[in-house]
Amino acid sequence: MAYALINKMTTNPGRRQEVIDLMLEAGAPFDDDPACLLYLVSAASDDPDVIWVQDLWTDEAAHVAAMSTEEMSGYVKQAMPLLTGMPEQIEVQPSGGKYPAG
Amino acid sequence: MAYALINKMTTNPGRRQEVIDLMLEAGAPFDDDPACLLYLVSAASDDPDVIWVQDLWTDEAAHVAAMSTEEMSGYVKQAMPLLTGMPEQIEVQPSGGKYPAG
Repeated sequence: MAYALINKMTTNPGRRQEVIDLMLEAGAPFDDDPACLLYLVSAASDDPDVIWVQDLWTDEAAHVAAMSTEEMSGYVKQAMPLLTGMPEQIEVQPSGGKYPAG
Repeated sequence: MAYALINKMTTNPGRRQEVIDLMLEAGAPFDDDPACLLYLVSAASDDPDVIWVQDLWTDEAAHVAAMSTEEMSGYVKQAMPLLTGMPEQIEVQPSGGKYPAG
């Protein structure tokens, strides 16, 4: 079944929108990537410095490939200094529900 | 923009699959509900007792309506004794990305 990640990022105070914009720009190519089923960038309602990124891919290899481009490395390098630490990455195994199929 | 929730549930040891099955059964009507854009039930990879449910709705009122049915109350009553406590509900404000549009 599909490969899913839930990512939590905490930004330095006042830098959240900047990182959200970077994440959206970085993910723009996913629109044309059929292996990307979901890429949802959200601002936490209860914390002004927290971003959640929800990813769903047809398989882990497709996700790794999408993260390994030179363009993606550039965005990661821009975003990292704006974060308080490493993103927290929660890997989950989808069981079912209603979601875009591959 | 859409209304999104990320829910974390911790089950009593050995009861996770039972709760996943309940969540999938409870969410079956969402397949025919155009206000539900995403309902993804997943098992955490790093903890044998944790479930993540990712919801995306056209708006908060649609989500509240879907949660307020008698059938849903029945599923909640069945699931609650299998959890270690209240589900952790993270409300987020979607900024964009690739996701099913309403």
